[in-house]
Amino acid sequence: MTIKIGIIGYGNLGRGVEKALMHAPDMALAAVFSRRPGAFVPDSGVPVVAMDAMDAYADRIDVMILCGGSATDLPVQGPLAARRFHMVDSFDTHAKIPGYFEAVRSAAAEGERLALVSCGWDPGLFSLARVLFDSILPSGTEDTFWGPGVSQGHSDALRRIPGVADARQYTLPVPVALEAARKGEAGSLGTRDRHTRACYVVLEEGADPEAVRQAIVTMPHYFADYDTTVHFLTAEELKERHDALPHGGRVIRHGETSPGTAHALELTLQLDSNPEFTGSVLAAYARAVYRLASEGRTGALTVLDIPFALLSPRSPETLRASFL
Amino acid sequence: MTIKIGIIGYGNLGRGVEKALMHAPDMALAAVFSRRPGAFVPDSGVPVVAMDAMDAYADRIDVMILCGGSATDLPVQGPLAARRFHMVDSFDTHAKIPGYFEAVRSAAAEGERLALVSCGWDPGLFSLARVLFDSILPSGTEDTFWGPGVSQGHSDALRRIPGVADARQYTLPVPVALEAARKGEAGSLGTRDRHTRACYVVLEEGADPEAVRQAIVTMPHYFADYDTTVHFLTAEELKERHDALPHGGRVIRHGETSPGTAHALELTLQLDSNPEFTGSVLAAYARAVYRLASEGRTGALTVLDIPFALLSPRSPETLRASFL
Repeated sequence: MTIKIGIIGYGNLGRGVEKALMHAPDMALAAVFSRRPGAFVPDSGVPVVAMDAMDAYADRIDVMILCGGSATDLPVQGPLAARRFHMVDSFDTHAKIPGYFEAVRSAAAEGERLALVSCGWDPGLFSLARVLFDSILPSGTEDTFWGPGVSQGHSDALRRIPGVADARQYTLPVPVALEAARKGEAGSLGTRDRHTRACYVVLEEGADPEAVRQAIVTMPHYFADYDTTVHFLTAEELKERHDALPHGGRVIRHGETSPGTAHALELTLQLDSNPEFTGSVLAAYARAVYRLASEGRTGALTVLDIPFALLSPRSPETLRASFL
Repeated sequence: MTIKIGIIGYGNLGRGVEKALMHAPDMALAAVFSRRPGAFVPDSGVPVVAMDAMDAYADRIDVMILCGGSATDLPVQGPLAARRFHMVDSFDTHAKIPGYFEAVRSAAAEGERLALVSCGWDPGLFSLARVLFDSILPSGTEDTFWGPGVSQGHSDALRRIPGVADARQYTLPVPVALEAARKGEAGSLGTRDRHTRACYVVLEEGADPEAVRQAIVTMPHYFADYDTTVHFLTAEELKERHDALPHGGRVIRHGETSPGTAHALELTLQLDSNPEFTGSVLAAYARAVYRLASEGRTGALTVLDIPFALLSPRSPETLRASFL
């Protein structure tokens, strides 16, 4: 029995899910759903179907994986898909998760489908680490650091600055802040102490580098609160040296079980490709959604509701004998 | 509603569970069950009950936490307790887990109780990391390293050597092996390349240090396959410098999602006190067992079957809003 997967949206993340499914013995991509069918052929050669013809596939897709963005795609597509399909998505606007969860839950309940929202690495694996660590060491401090890696939101912010033709932004954790977190001493550190930002910028012809630099380092929310370095380079150099989308980070918990007896727990991810890794997380959770939906579960879940045994293609007996 | 916890066995681990419960807003230690009631008073002052009077407490204990050893205590106490109580234990003889799981499962099913076995950090948190990482990056390599920390099994082995009055053994990971694992290149490393062992030994009066050293470094299974250093010291020095039971380790996964695109995932634990930390893990999982048992679940589970939301005293809404 192969689990038939549909992908909605064929950008970097959609292609990441497609690659992840090639490593899964029990899942197969059945179709890609897109607003521009005919504009591309997926690497795996599966059919591309117009988004609004999706409903006709209700019997041919076991789990739909939504690969659109959190700003505009998912708020519409999530509830729409959840009414017709079991689904997984990577909605990642942390502040809006409760509202989005409720919208998807209500649609899924109406349609008697099962949806898992906000799956990836943050939210996702980092959320798992935060809850696990907090549950085991309730008296303690927790710190999440991101990078070294490319922040697509910050890269987009750079590209909106007049005079900028293209850009890539790297978020970097400050090493002494990591060390402080491992000792439970990062509480007093401010935003500037925790991360730095490095910008690689291609100027438009005739743009004034100093004006662009000033516009960047003073940009509120994105850069003003950080020590930001700006490097100018050619479009060719950007393409050659900064075309990948590496990312990663760590969740660090420091907590005491009795006075003076402390423990440090840390989950670290170093990812060559953010979208390929996120796609792999989505694929594993699609397996869990399929299994729970097969038992009749409906409504909405997050990664916090899924036992890890459901993520694995291996049998419970194998997991107990060889992985426990 | 406070979850009433019983502890069976009041050694280091039992005391660790007792300390963990002091950090839990929703759980309280109700009684300690022991083979030698009257021989001690628990730090929290709860009653100590003779092990064979346990059955009378069936209505007064919500979840029993078994704190005995895996060699001789748990194989007897596990199935016995599971017939009468919902329970959690830390059975950690990896090779015997499937048999032990089945013995406890069958007892729990008969008694309509719920049992979670082999909970702690290895097996336990490390098992979770192994299954999660393997599910997300199925094409890759996985390595578990232990230490720096005290191995109680190896310390016991030292104490059985003629001429040894007391001893403590530290397991240490080899730094270059950790680096290799992060690059997926540790596959060819042998036992000796991965860990070293450092022994701190108090000699009996008149014992020959060189004979003891030879007996240690050539001991099959325990030391012969490792680069082992032996340090002699006085009983006072051992007590002063090596009285704590620190431990820890890491699970490292390296995997590719497409040719040349690799990711490294790592869970690291640095523990000042192995028993206090293991006790904290047991306490969090006792909460989950209580909740699942309250829904009518019976039989046996492992950490791989428990969603993290069940480990936390926080509400699902709080977890989604603040931890996801």
